Amino acid sequence: MDAIYSASVTAPVNIATLKYWGKRDAGLNLPTNSSISVTLSQNDLRTVTTAAASMTFSEDQVWLNGRQEDINASKRMTTLLREMRALRKQVEDVKQAEGEKNVVPLSGYKLKIVSENNFPTAAGLASSAAGFAAFVQALADLYELPHTADELSVLARQGSGSACRSLFGGYAIWNMGSKADGSDSMASQIAPESHWPDMKAAIMVVSADKKETPSTSGMQLTVQTSDLFKYRVQHVVPQREKDMTQAILDRDFETFAKLTMQDSNNFHACCLDTNPPIFYLNDTSRACIRLVEDLNKIAGKTIAGYTFDAGPNAVVYYLQENEQLVLGALKHALPKDEAWETKPDIQPFNSPDFDQKYLEKVTNGISKLILTGVGPGPQKSSIKLIDKNGDLLM
Amino acid sequence: MDAIYSASVTAPVNIATLKYWGKRDAGLNLPTNSSISVTLSQNDLRTVTTAAASMTFSEDQVWLNGRQEDINASKRMTTLLREMRALRKQVEDVKQAEGEKNVVPLSGYKLKIVSENNFPTAAGLASSAAGFAAFVQALADLYELPHTADELSVLARQGSGSACRSLFGGYAIWNMGSKADGSDSMASQIAPESHWPDMKAAIMVVSADKKETPSTSGMQLTVQTSDLFKYRVQHVVPQREKDMTQAILDRDFETFAKLTMQDSNNFHACCLDTNPPIFYLNDTSRACIRLVEDLNKIAGKTIAGYTFDAGPNAVVYYLQENEQLVLGALKHALPKDEAWETKPDIQPFNSPDFDQKYLEKVTNGISKLILTGVGPGPQKSSIKLIDKNGDLLM
Repeated sequence: MDAIYSASVTAPVNIATLKYWGKRDAGLNLPTNSSISVTLSQNDLRTVTTAAASMTFSEDQVWLNGRQEDINASKRMTTLLREMRALRKQVEDVKQAEGEKNVVPLSGYKLKIVSENNFPTAAGLASSAAGFAAFVQALADLYELPHTADELSVLARQGSGSACRSLFGGYAIWNMGSKADGSDSMASQIAPESHWPDMKAAIMVVSADKKETPSTSGMQLTVQTSDLFKYRVQHVVPQREKDMTQAILDRDFETFAKLTMQDSNNFHACCLDTNPPIFYLNDTSRACIRLVEDLNKIAGKTIAGYTFDAGPNAVVYYLQENEQLVLGALKHALPKDEAWETKPDIQPFNSPDFDQKYLEKVTNGISKLILTGVGPGPQKSSIKLIDKNGDLLM
Repeated sequence: MDAIYSASVTAPVNIATLKYWGKRDAGLNLPTNSSISVTLSQNDLRTVTTAAASMTFSEDQVWLNGRQEDINASKRMTTLLREMRALRKQVEDVKQAEGEKNVVPLSGYKLKIVSENNFPTAAGLASSAAGFAAFVQALADLYELPHTADELSVLARQGSGSACRSLFGGYAIWNMGSKADGSDSMASQIAPESHWPDMKAAIMVVSADKKETPSTSGMQLTVQTSDLFKYRVQHVVPQREKDMTQAILDRDFETFAKLTMQDSNNFHACCLDTNPPIFYLNDTSRACIRLVEDLNKIAGKTIAGYTFDAGPNAVVYYLQENEQLVLGALKHALPKDEAWETKPDIQPFNSPDFDQKYLEKVTNGISKLILTGVGPGPQKSSIKLIDKNGDLLM
């Protein structure tokens, strides 16, 4: 029987604290500005991907969350496969030149790639970042590529811009770069998760309508029509990039959280300034913002920082030392959430200084809470989604 | 019996199409940028004010909507009274110098001023503009001041910034001016209501919570904390001021409406970019925006333009020639509104191209519709709120 060669990895979700919004080159996913993110723990949110190659496979096939994708309809995926095969071919050529026998010509084999998230797509969490990071890492492992995470990030970026940041644990920055071919538009690690492991995140999932404007088309509409966006890119982001990087290196939570909130609001302001306007925040999102603002006022300092991607869900960052207060407020607002099963010691926290109107909107509008923290980048996995016969295990 | 001297006027509401937001001098109400507005018909929305002076009055007294105000607690009102008395004194001095007998020394008499709106304050419509315009005009009439509306606008501005635009019918611009004393920060008429009388407005009143951030404190927070606001003031407004003025002069509705919508969104984007963020638009406001955007798509051109002040209510401008289509859509969404009693011929208009989700939110979230049009500035009124004995008629 012909051998099946395979590699399995898991990859994390990342949530930007300095937002990526706008492309200067849509084909290559080259952004209009740099961005920064926190990589979330894979204990709670992750994609697992198995990539397999075999002489016996007759065509390239990809399955995402149990459904086969039309790979030829995805220019991003065919480009990635072509580029990664070319890199594998270089590896094979080098090995042969060095006299190695029995170099497996994987670059010539067809592939089966199977990918699954451990969280519902319906949660509205950007899964494409984890997905493309896992895709690239699984192929890199299968092909035994010698590339660093920084170098692989250039590939992942072409699949989904923000995927390049999911190749790193901890705190990552995607430098926008300046070259036309995108070869310097890559991510790198600001600090590993061990640098600041006390960073925690609570994801407040809104009982939402379907996302109204896909981010890919939305961001280009902003680039084309928003006056304020030009200012954001040229004057707001560059300074914030420096300040946020420094806050992470200094483990300065207050500065980090303030900048994170300001950047989320600045990004959504540019969405609103788009013509026609794009709205991702809804009344529940606003209530989450007020809850966090009130909580910080009550605490007398910034102990929590919210951020919103292209959707209504709030991600609230906080430090372990303030868990009782931050999660206490969330437990008061959302007493019935299943998340508390893993946190039985958290005492609900109420205060007359919370605006009860907004608390009520949080209670009514949030469908699910996910409690997680900062975590590592892609990991080799023992989970196999393709068996030794090349059959799918899903 | 001692004589009571009195004057009564009505003054209109105006709704900005190029927004006033931000003061460079809070004491003098000097704005960070110029603004443009449409004056609405007093048939639907107006303030009536009677100003009376008499030797027999023992103190200055002001009543707004049936409630006596503590005039000494309002620096704006005491300043206005002092300045207008000084102007009256000049008139008296000139008359006496010209040999006129029996010049009534009104500048030395105490005043009673009574003001009432014909619309509920609860509607959340900016009533202070109409109120201070009526206040200044009634005193100017009582004192027989020779001042033009442009000159009076400098006084009204000190009461409430946007009040300066309510001294004009039709289309008004408030030039920000540059002098430190504010003497050149005055409004003037771009064109009278007769220039473009086909302009109509539908006010969609949202069943709202109380306004969360008062505009006076909100705008200064924006000035202090929003990066994007700086760009709005320096680069967005100046060009838009020229373009909108020209669109009004050309009666170019499409350009006028597009700029109006963009400026509303730009202003609310700056509110969102404020730290902490200010939200005036809610989910119902968003649904109104989508309804208008959909309607324009269905019509194949811009036949309606929305704008939102510092609150959730939508004001939708349209031309008489498109009344059937614009009001038809509103009648479909709001079939039970009392406004239709005066417009029985409007046929409800539905289309599969309306997003039904948003239509439903409009139906559920809008409590009242006010149909009106463009109208004149302050008018002398036969309504007397103070009788010949100096007693209140309220």
